[in-house]
Amino acid sequence: MSEALDNEVGKAGLMVPLDLGAKGSCHIGGNVATNAGGLRLLRYGSLHGSVLGLEAVLADGTVLDCLTALKKDNTGYDIKQLFIGSEGTLGIITKVAIACPTRPKSINLALLAVPSFEGVINVFGKAKENLGEILSSCEFMDNQSMDCVTGNLNLRSPLSSSSFYMLIETSGSNTEHDEEKLQHFLDSMLSNGMVTDGTVASAPSKQREVWQLRERLAESLLVDGYCYKYDISLPLAVFYQAVIHMRERLGSSVVRCVGYGHVGDGNLHLNVTTKQYSQEVMDLIEPFLYEWTAKYRGSISAEHGLGFKKRNYIGFSKSQAAVNIMHSIKQVFDPQGILNPYKVLPDK
Amino acid sequence: MSEALDNEVGKAGLMVPLDLGAKGSCHIGGNVATNAGGLRLLRYGSLHGSVLGLEAVLADGTVLDCLTALKKDNTGYDIKQLFIGSEGTLGIITKVAIACPTRPKSINLALLAVPSFEGVINVFGKAKENLGEILSSCEFMDNQSMDCVTGNLNLRSPLSSSSFYMLIETSGSNTEHDEEKLQHFLDSMLSNGMVTDGTVASAPSKQREVWQLRERLAESLLVDGYCYKYDISLPLAVFYQAVIHMRERLGSSVVRCVGYGHVGDGNLHLNVTTKQYSQEVMDLIEPFLYEWTAKYRGSISAEHGLGFKKRNYIGFSKSQAAVNIMHSIKQVFDPQGILNPYKVLPDK
Repeated sequence: MSEALDNEVGKAGLMVPLDLGAKGSCHIGGNVATNAGGLRLLRYGSLHGSVLGLEAVLADGTVLDCLTALKKDNTGYDIKQLFIGSEGTLGIITKVAIACPTRPKSINLALLAVPSFEGVINVFGKAKENLGEILSSCEFMDNQSMDCVTGNLNLRSPLSSSSFYMLIETSGSNTEHDEEKLQHFLDSMLSNGMVTDGTVASAPSKQREVWQLRERLAESLLVDGYCYKYDISLPLAVFYQAVIHMRERLGSSVVRCVGYGHVGDGNLHLNVTTKQYSQEVMDLIEPFLYEWTAKYRGSISAEHGLGFKKRNYIGFSKSQAAVNIMHSIKQVFDPQGILNPYKVLPDK
Repeated sequence: MSEALDNEVGKAGLMVPLDLGAKGSCHIGGNVATNAGGLRLLRYGSLHGSVLGLEAVLADGTVLDCLTALKKDNTGYDIKQLFIGSEGTLGIITKVAIACPTRPKSINLALLAVPSFEGVINVFGKAKENLGEILSSCEFMDNQSMDCVTGNLNLRSPLSSSSFYMLIETSGSNTEHDEEKLQHFLDSMLSNGMVTDGTVASAPSKQREVWQLRERLAESLLVDGYCYKYDISLPLAVFYQAVIHMRERLGSSVVRCVGYGHVGDGNLHLNVTTKQYSQEVMDLIEPFLYEWTAKYRGSISAEHGLGFKKRNYIGFSKSQAAVNIMHSIKQVFDPQGILNPYKVLPDK
């Protein structure tokens, strides 16, 4: 499991540059095959940057050795990149070399109440400016999300009610410096009114409590009944409008329509719940939401991939010329189409 | 030019996550096509991580639009990655979207004298530990390199003579914190004897002076006459042995054999000079150096690419299965072989 891997490299003072809600059950091969993103991509970048090498078994049984552990290697095309995010359709990843950054000595987490989404964007901008190199996560959730996770799972929010909440995490090498930066940042946000309430968790146990509000959100939505899950990337300028439009469109036909996610990476989790599955609700969401996302050149799948269900929607985020090339590449690696068939690529 | 681009994004408080000696003459399209590395890859990662999207014109005239500016997008294979480092053999890059980090407010540069290469590795390890998130560059040069740049270009080193020198740069958001971290790091390195002499440049003009010693090295080598240039990646444990072996092998047949480069990224520039080109010297270097590099699973071209001269040496760093796939990919993008012919890929 990825968590076991992180514990292992921790013994050498390092960390896996990837942190997922599913870290207790997912495996690194799968993480690479799906180009998993997670909570700290903002700081450590995507797997396209941190995977140094890999070994994959191809459809014809060839063991493809791209397993160097070098940070720099410009000898030919970087074909290992194709496996990152290919969801097992080009080969099975059997080994991975990944660059592990130094494990931070000091981690702090702030939970903030922010009155508007415009405010969320401004606070994120100020965090980049003032926290700079120690900013390691910038998440947001709306009040409907907070209501769901506290109400459905009986958790408690330490803050007074607000339209939006942000989790801002810092990771650094010097506790004193980090706390000073964070305190200065919070003081200035509170004094100019961008943030109306806030709490800082320094103890690991307190941090875990705060993270639960964000990490158990997906679980809490399932308590409502059925959950329609969307994972889209959008420019920040129109980011939360997706939720507002969808909420208006769905009205009282749903239990709730919530927005949360990796605002620091432009990645929105827009989820809708109903008591049970409703085709009528589904028809209101799709393809409307995909069309809306495409209009702003967003991605209809930021980190979850296309799999079986979304493969025929690839055209909302990729040009036909790009899809044609993907088909040709699939043909190169797996001419018989035996690897994870009916996934990722649309029918021709 | 990349420098003009950096100045432009600087107006928005951002920076281009790439810094090259050639920044005054290179262009961003070429940087991406060659997957340029440079002095700050250690901090900002490779272009495979920071290029968000690109547009390329293919051999048949198709304009391939992969120009999203999203940090996260898992919709199909990430085909833009193939263009990064393909040296113009798969298509011509015409537009690029690149993630630009916040421009640091505080930059410091230390030049250190280190008695042994083992010491260089140790100082790098301590820099990662103590400077952590503000470390933005870690370069080294041997005393033969320093002799060359000072002697041939009439520059002055501010340090007493030493076997090795390191340039350690920090970039951060808080001047006071950064200076405290760097000072503490230097004090501990000087007091334990890992570093025997050192100077810190805070003023930009002083920093430019110190960077000249590293950045004008390639230029200074040409003053000797002819320069045989090698750009290899190696595991740090055997990194400098490449220079020692080569120096022994070449003996007095050359003017000098020097080692310098991006030690923080495992990237060695091993350069040899003679008064004029000598086939005898060339035969002593190649293929010996490539074989030696391959023995340690290094890369025979860390950041300079294969081009025309090194394409038939690709087998020293890539498996035959990988090369076969590269040929197939070239066939997909450019079946007539009209794009930058005779480059990157070996004859079949």
